Amino acid sequence: MILRRLASTASATVSKFSLSPTIRQLLAHPPQPEQTTTVSGWIKSIRKQKNVTFAVITDGSSFQGLQVVLVKGKDDNLLRKVTNGASVRITGHLVSSPGSGQSHELLVDQSATGEVVVLGECHPETYPIQKQELTTEYLRDNVHLRARTSHIAATLRLRDVLQRNINSWFETQGFYYTNTPIITGNDAEGAGEAFRLALVESQHPAATAQTTPIPPAEFFSRPAFLTVSHQLHLEALATALSRVYTLSPCFRAEKSMTGRHLAEFWMLEAEWAFPSGNGVHGISDLTEALLKETTQTVLDSEDVAFLWKDGGPQKRKVLFDAFNKQKPWARMSYTEAILELAKIHPLVNFVHTPLWGQPLQSEHERWLAETLVGGPVFVTDYPAPLKPFYMRVNPDEKTVACFDLLVPHVGELIGGSVREERVEVLTKKMEGIPRSEWYLDLRKYGGAPHAGFGMGFERFVSWISGVDNIRECIPMPRWTGRMLL
Amino acid sequence: MILRRLASTASATVSKFSLSPTIRQLLAHPPQPEQTTTVSGWIKSIRKQKNVTFAVITDGSSFQGLQVVLVKGKDDNLLRKVTNGASVRITGHLVSSPGSGQSHELLVDQSATGEVVVLGECHPETYPIQKQELTTEYLRDNVHLRARTSHIAATLRLRDVLQRNINSWFETQGFYYTNTPIITGNDAEGAGEAFRLALVESQHPAATAQTTPIPPAEFFSRPAFLTVSHQLHLEALATALSRVYTLSPCFRAEKSMTGRHLAEFWMLEAEWAFPSGNGVHGISDLTEALLKETTQTVLDSEDVAFLWKDGGPQKRKVLFDAFNKQKPWARMSYTEAILELAKIHPLVNFVHTPLWGQPLQSEHERWLAETLVGGPVFVTDYPAPLKPFYMRVNPDEKTVACFDLLVPHVGELIGGSVREERVEVLTKKMEGIPRSEWYLDLRKYGGAPHAGFGMGFERFVSWISGVDNIRECIPMPRWTGRMLL
Repeated sequence: MILRRLASTASATVSKFSLSPTIRQLLAHPPQPEQTTTVSGWIKSIRKQKNVTFAVITDGSSFQGLQVVLVKGKDDNLLRKVTNGASVRITGHLVSSPGSGQSHELLVDQSATGEVVVLGECHPETYPIQKQELTTEYLRDNVHLRARTSHIAATLRLRDVLQRNINSWFETQGFYYTNTPIITGNDAEGAGEAFRLALVESQHPAATAQTTPIPPAEFFSRPAFLTVSHQLHLEALATALSRVYTLSPCFRAEKSMTGRHLAEFWMLEAEWAFPSGNGVHGISDLTEALLKETTQTVLDSEDVAFLWKDGGPQKRKVLFDAFNKQKPWARMSYTEAILELAKIHPLVNFVHTPLWGQPLQSEHERWLAETLVGGPVFVTDYPAPLKPFYMRVNPDEKTVACFDLLVPHVGELIGGSVREERVEVLTKKMEGIPRSEWYLDLRKYGGAPHAGFGMGFERFVSWISGVDNIRECIPMPRWTGRMLL
Repeated sequence: MILRRLASTASATVSKFSLSPTIRQLLAHPPQPEQTTTVSGWIKSIRKQKNVTFAVITDGSSFQGLQVVLVKGKDDNLLRKVTNGASVRITGHLVSSPGSGQSHELLVDQSATGEVVVLGECHPETYPIQKQELTTEYLRDNVHLRARTSHIAATLRLRDVLQRNINSWFETQGFYYTNTPIITGNDAEGAGEAFRLALVESQHPAATAQTTPIPPAEFFSRPAFLTVSHQLHLEALATALSRVYTLSPCFRAEKSMTGRHLAEFWMLEAEWAFPSGNGVHGISDLTEALLKETTQTVLDSEDVAFLWKDGGPQKRKVLFDAFNKQKPWARMSYTEAILELAKIHPLVNFVHTPLWGQPLQSEHERWLAETLVGGPVFVTDYPAPLKPFYMRVNPDEKTVACFDLLVPHVGELIGGSVREERVEVLTKKMEGIPRSEWYLDLRKYGGAPHAGFGMGFERFVSWISGVDNIRECIPMPRWTGRMLL
């Protein structure tokens, strides 16, 4: 709606600005062949024949590059500089392609109106992004250039479209996008997992006359951390705007080296007041609708098709089934899950014996999603001691109204819960947590029933793309010991 | 387009999930009066009369609350709990309002189908958000509750709609939204302005057997800072995807206490390869189109109208003129600006004498935008020594192809430039900057002409809303000495 409003108003009162079309835009709306067309980008491949040279040029706008056919012209010396990785501006005519790989190609006759301009040369031998298969580790070392590979570029475009779909979905549901803080005074869920800011020189500009050195101090007068979750702050905004979400960076100073953990990652978090009376199932309904409705069209994209080429057909089928099936995703309580796990334990012999009251281990989660269900599964109502203080205690007084969404090959994708809105229950659960008054105030003054969830965005991208390691699902990953650029 | 694609596909294959309508949605599509309607929210005001009680309920979804008319019913004891700030669920019939302030009101007859449920009480005397005017400073102290005031809620909704419009605009221009890192090894533009991460316990989980304590160490093996700008990383992505942008948090450990600086703020930054050949004017064209096309409809919104009530009619006129005028925004070179400033200097007596080669001071910028132009003005082509190394040197070899967009009452809103793509020029300018190889690589291998800009998002919100201090343009502001929650 905004798009439409924007477009109609804009055309009425503002002279329309636009950049020249990208290859994606050109192929979506091809100009007439008699019109000259100019394309800028990088040479992806080149094949020189006697009278004609074939090149593929990409500008990163889509998975498809554009095939360029260069008819032998007067200045063929120039062609020596048209090498892999070189940036070029090419003018020609966009014609229907006789080849099978593409609908159109750019025909360039330099003896007529055609033109090839090399904007930036690229030494074909020293260029780090060579055409042969490059290892994941090598590309991590060349993180500044790796978005030039088809794989990483496809993942980045996938991030973009998923984020746009998520934003649109929340808008239709009456949610506001908000920016909660990154720097916070909360040391958050686990001790020691949050990055802390270093002390800074405490000298105030107004005090430059001072000659004795002042020791470094807290910039904010008290210890400051990078947030591990935006939930608590979102809750404050949800008691005012009712429905809020954010897609924002989060940080964990974990020494984990797995493919599912990053020190810096993006998290989608939503909180809403006055949820349907359906408890944890209402929240599951919402997250299931969100994932299904934002992903459906994306699965058919060229980028996802390409990314799944190496992803394994069975894994791919499980993913597509999750989104193709009409039926809702599986749901079971933690108690039911433990019963299922205990039943199968003698046969599969888990490292950790499934026991009520103990956390589900990664091996358990995988078995539930991959083997028992063969698709996404909401596991609900965990024992209260396994979950944080803010989750609402169920009438049984032993479990909380929460879910984890477990997904094949990814594990826990989303965690959500009804939040504890009863001030006396919460006060008791928060005993010993410092500076909790503001959080209790949210319940003390017009407290409203509310619920929320959080989803690691890179895990979502990993699931949809089949790219196993989330280090390849973010442009410039950070983990312990590793931060290039 | 995504919205439409989403909606059509979704309805075909996924059972449609939706939350109950917000007040905004109800007023946009009012149900038939004979239908019962349930609204949840917080009491904004209440006036009890003998046979009827008038209340306004808000759920934060729009500036307008909903007037509720409670006909005297059987359980009037309950009304004692319906106080300012209480959260309630009210069922009644949405009927045309005879009053002048609103189109519809909710008529509640508890002796018939009407119902009032108090979900969360709010003590009318201790509630921190009282109805009388509350000072800005008081609300900063109650930052966890201040989004319940009409002012802050309107600002937050404005942030949401501006961000959505910006996202839509960039999509139509072929840009990809990307997430560049927050934690970086670059100490960035100014020494000491970046927050640094503290050392962490270096014990690796695998080394728990170790008994001698290990001193704390860098988590990433080298000093880590919070980014002050995403530009350099965006440039790396622009050499692959051509057109990229981000709207992302940035950090400055500045001890500034002005209303234009925050320690944590959001910045819109875009970089694109192959800009129009028009140099700095092409970038100005793009940013002007962006601002005009994303703001136009927003100016007519209820929220903006309300926020400008106290903003001063003259200031408001200047803002609206900037967006109403058909004519393009003013442009002048730095040299022309200095000449104009020097000419007026004897009359206005600036604190800083305007001199070519010296930075424009705040007083100069204000005079140019507010007095000379009376609207936004692009000042272009600053002397090279005043600007960072990455800006492209002009043929005169003294100035760089850059602009600052100066805006009345805000000052510098946007800074942009053509980036230096010539590797030999850049290498010379980067002498002495450590770890610059990756940045030079971007030019060495298929370097492409490119350009970009950055806009402080809170300053943009401040300009559009007339809210002077950017601390009120972000939900939970952080500045030196101040970080609540």
